[in-house]
Amino acid sequence: MKKKRPIKIAIVGVGKIACDQHLPAIWASDEFELVASASLGETVAGWPGFRSIDDMLAAVPKIEAVALCVPPQYRYMAARAALLAGKHVLMEKPPGATLSEVEDLQALAARQGCTLFASWHSRHAPAVQPAKAFLAEWPPLSVQIVWREDVRLWHPGQDWIWQAGGLGVFDPGINALSILTEILPSRVFLQRATLGFPANRAAPIAAELFFQDADGMQVHADFDWRETTQQRWDIVVQTAAGELRLGDGGASLWRQGAAQALGDEKEYPSLYRHFAALIKDGRSDVDLSPLRHVADAFMLGLRAQLGLFDH
Amino acid sequence: MKKKRPIKIAIVGVGKIACDQHLPAIWASDEFELVASASLGETVAGWPGFRSIDDMLAAVPKIEAVALCVPPQYRYMAARAALLAGKHVLMEKPPGATLSEVEDLQALAARQGCTLFASWHSRHAPAVQPAKAFLAEWPPLSVQIVWREDVRLWHPGQDWIWQAGGLGVFDPGINALSILTEILPSRVFLQRATLGFPANRAAPIAAELFFQDADGMQVHADFDWRETTQQRWDIVVQTAAGELRLGDGGASLWRQGAAQALGDEKEYPSLYRHFAALIKDGRSDVDLSPLRHVADAFMLGLRAQLGLFDH
Repeated sequence: MKKKRPIKIAIVGVGKIACDQHLPAIWASDEFELVASASLGETVAGWPGFRSIDDMLAAVPKIEAVALCVPPQYRYMAARAALLAGKHVLMEKPPGATLSEVEDLQALAARQGCTLFASWHSRHAPAVQPAKAFLAEWPPLSVQIVWREDVRLWHPGQDWIWQAGGLGVFDPGINALSILTEILPSRVFLQRATLGFPANRAAPIAAELFFQDADGMQVHADFDWRETTQQRWDIVVQTAAGELRLGDGGASLWRQGAAQALGDEKEYPSLYRHFAALIKDGRSDVDLSPLRHVADAFMLGLRAQLGLFDH
Repeated sequence: MKKKRPIKIAIVGVGKIACDQHLPAIWASDEFELVASASLGETVAGWPGFRSIDDMLAAVPKIEAVALCVPPQYRYMAARAALLAGKHVLMEKPPGATLSEVEDLQALAARQGCTLFASWHSRHAPAVQPAKAFLAEWPPLSVQIVWREDVRLWHPGQDWIWQAGGLGVFDPGINALSILTEILPSRVFLQRATLGFPANRAAPIAAELFFQDADGMQVHADFDWRETTQQRWDIVVQTAAGELRLGDGGASLWRQGAAQALGDEKEYPSLYRHFAALIKDGRSDVDLSPLRHVADAFMLGLRAQLGLFDH
């Protein structure tokens, strides 16, 4: 069988997520071939590196696709530049700093005939599709989300995450919402929320959210960045067939307390396979529902002023 | 010519906006006929009045359409009850407390074969369509919105407006955004914003917003509820053909300083004519872009803590 010609891809924003996840996934893939990177910080040693996406696109015309790993505040301009140059675009989550700008990119991608992929890596966790199949058969009676981690451990030095538009604790929390909106058979919407802002930060460090669906099914979410002992990324669903528990951000699955056999966690390899399939099929995949829930939480939620937060 | 049979309509939420605008528009229309009202406060003297929409729908089956004038926090449940009963629904602005719930109502209206109209009354102001036509020919170079009013004068006793989800100064400000999104030939999105919250209120009393479109055209908006001297609801657009100014919330229009002849302000009669046309054509009209911009502002905006606000 003839080996496919790999898609020539460039990375924009060579930070923690690019080095931890995107580059290993690209190197392990035979569908993509790294050809360049652009970043204000590090570039990828051994490959052509540029300070801006515009310089990179001008200098390396063979680029066919770009993966955007810059903070969300800078994602729109980078995505627009790439789409205008006729490149396919993968965006890290969240796909933008505002909902409106992503709608604009969707329209541009359609006009340009390019693939736009607003990726949600947690949807590629191994427990997600089995959980979705189970809940299609056994509708949820209630859902409890606990997403508690130590921000000092997981986001060291990421100043952008604390700025307006950086989303604070919703940066990990939106991963839970991306799983929730994928596995639930019904649409939920926020009823009330409380967002806790440190006195010296522009983004929340904790949030409590109460959703329900049209039939009154309740979803409670507890996002907290102040957890220093038991870090948890769990979604627990009660059903008529017992409890379904997605643990470790979707890496593990229990049914009525019994661990289910799953494949290894390979979120980013799966995500890149989906990107390749979208490009091949000439399609885009932009689901804004996780970010819409976050925007709703900021709009509807009560703000609680907390004490100072020190690094 | 045979006179059309009027659509039997009920009002839900008989407060200030219902009495000031909806009831006079319905009474003046030969396309609608009021048959009942439901409200926790006053009902409409001389017509059957109920304490809840469910009671009303059960007692008055001839109702064909409902106009929802309850605060946005209560709009979803009322709209859902009406749609499930097969009624057409007009929603006052904003159409909901969250974007997600309105998406859910859109899906429900489509399933039920009912008309859902998320109304934006300011779009029916007489300057709006002439301005839109002008800007289609002369694209805007920049836009300045000044929406400054005295909250004590315009929203006396409206406690819901200060609660989480009540939107604060965005309650009038969203009118400006509904005009902006109607008249602009391009899509804009928020770049940065500052929202000022009184220390004793859960909603902002002032907001400054900076939008731009993909080509860098700038829109600046100044929303303020603390204006006690010169109340203004102006949108000023610079073009290559001079300045276009929509004044008084779209009731007046100036081109290069010269007042343009317009019809009388008849926002709600026009809005109800549009509702009747939608019902006749079996269509819905739900444009979420003004509310999406507000959600973006809450998500992206910097929060400034202000002093106490006293009634």
